[in-house]
Amino acid sequence: MSLVDRIRLFHPPELSALRPFLIQGRRLGWILPGFAGRLAKFPAVFEVGADAVRLKDRYDSDESRSDAVAGVVEALAREGVLPKLRHERYAVARSFYDKPLMGLERSAVPSFGTLAYGVHLNGHVGEGRDMKMWIGRRSRHKATGPLKLDHIVAGGQPLGLSLAENLVKECGEEAAMSPDLARRSRPVGFVSYLIQNYEGIRNDVLFCYDIALPADFRPVNTDGEIEEFYLWPIAQVIETLATTDEFKFNVGLVIIDFLVRHGLIAPDDPSYPELILNLRIRDHFGDGV
Amino acid sequence: MSLVDRIRLFHPPELSALRPFLIQGRRLGWILPGFAGRLAKFPAVFEVGADAVRLKDRYDSDESRSDAVAGVVEALAREGVLPKLRHERYAVARSFYDKPLMGLERSAVPSFGTLAYGVHLNGHVGEGRDMKMWIGRRSRHKATGPLKLDHIVAGGQPLGLSLAENLVKECGEEAAMSPDLARRSRPVGFVSYLIQNYEGIRNDVLFCYDIALPADFRPVNTDGEIEEFYLWPIAQVIETLATTDEFKFNVGLVIIDFLVRHGLIAPDDPSYPELILNLRIRDHFGDGV
Repeated sequence: MSLVDRIRLFHPPELSALRPFLIQGRRLGWILPGFAGRLAKFPAVFEVGADAVRLKDRYDSDESRSDAVAGVVEALAREGVLPKLRHERYAVARSFYDKPLMGLERSAVPSFGTLAYGVHLNGHVGEGRDMKMWIGRRSRHKATGPLKLDHIVAGGQPLGLSLAENLVKECGEEAAMSPDLARRSRPVGFVSYLIQNYEGIRNDVLFCYDIALPADFRPVNTDGEIEEFYLWPIAQVIETLATTDEFKFNVGLVIIDFLVRHGLIAPDDPSYPELILNLRIRDHFGDGV
Repeated sequence: MSLVDRIRLFHPPELSALRPFLIQGRRLGWILPGFAGRLAKFPAVFEVGADAVRLKDRYDSDESRSDAVAGVVEALAREGVLPKLRHERYAVARSFYDKPLMGLERSAVPSFGTLAYGVHLNGHVGEGRDMKMWIGRRSRHKATGPLKLDHIVAGGQPLGLSLAENLVKECGEEAAMSPDLARRSRPVGFVSYLIQNYEGIRNDVLFCYDIALPADFRPVNTDGEIEEFYLWPIAQVIETLATTDEFKFNVGLVIIDFLVRHGLIAPDDPSYPELILNLRIRDHFGDGV
């Protein structure tokens, strides 16, 4: 096992086995054939073809699209086809900076394969080979990745908050970090991927942040999302990442990016290009844009 | 003008206008039609077709290939078709980690469009918005980019040295940095591109390093390659990069990568994805590998 095996988890699936999800003729996501079959039972809302699933063009506003799809999502959640509702909506758009075409219930996002965003914070103490990193163990009650290892702070990006505001909010909830301390976090780029897993299609952009924490800081979880925190030597983080499945799947990608930026993976290692070139996907919709 | 304009300089050219350079049937570089016409005058060494330029298969060793091409390169340099020889050979291979198929005179590398490597060091004092960065002005006698602005230290990667060894050597020559200080440099990734310019085709991978320098350190050039050093506020570096052509073309790419990693470009900026996604090219040979 190696970090290269971890990065290969982010190779995209065979896109010809998926159906693009179209709104007003534009690709906004990806749908698996089984779920397309379920949507075919709602012909007033979706036009399900062998080549694509289209939201009916007559829904011509953000609000009408959101409401029509919400009705279907709620019905399918009641049937157990979709997971329990989280009553939180994610934006559906071609890019983080575009006006959303609709809002979509968070728990249904992997079923429609629309873009989702997160903020992920690497909390470290010290630098170089002697560095330690704060690692959280996710609550056993989390919908995705219960009991998996995680960053000190990470969270989905809701509508209506800036990335910086969301990060400060999550730092308070997940680690009892004061806003002043949280604002010392530094944006350092993003990682992104398009993969198929048990949830459906994850089409994600994770905005990455680093924070060099004081040696005496101790994170305390306040929202029940983290069971326990560990301050691990970076060598233990790397070893655990390379040899086990203990980390939540997408945390590995953010940590590999961190290791590269902090010189903890060296360019004389022949896997250096593969590790770096697979940190990000360019084409989230398979249309070359 | 903006940093986005800088990053767009690294969009690859229309590859159909170039001819792949093949050795033993594999793509190793790119040749412009005019230079292909010059190579056609050496039919014992090159097979020049409309679709590709092939090194004759009868050269079946590293040494025989290097010698055959060196003869042509020297003849073309005497005619003034190629620039003055630098008497330094670069490796010709599909990757930095592959055994080279031949060595090629450095001054001819852009004419064959083969991969070239460099080490580029960002020397900064302090962190965040108050950071300063050491900037060199290249000697008026340099073959490429005379009098352009540059990093504190940067250099090509010769055969026979590790990246770390080359960086320490260049730090001594270009900035009189002691080996102990130079070794505090931290590898932080690479940038890469395939572009056409007045030299021909630049098909480059630049290994990037950062060094946080002591406030009292003053670089002194010892090899005549830098005329002068400046310690600039980072805002002046960004402004100069965004609004002038003073920086050597590829230095801009390394500095944009630095600005992203150090949080000096923020993810709420809609140009963030474009800046980050264009830092690296995946396909140096146009064959999708």
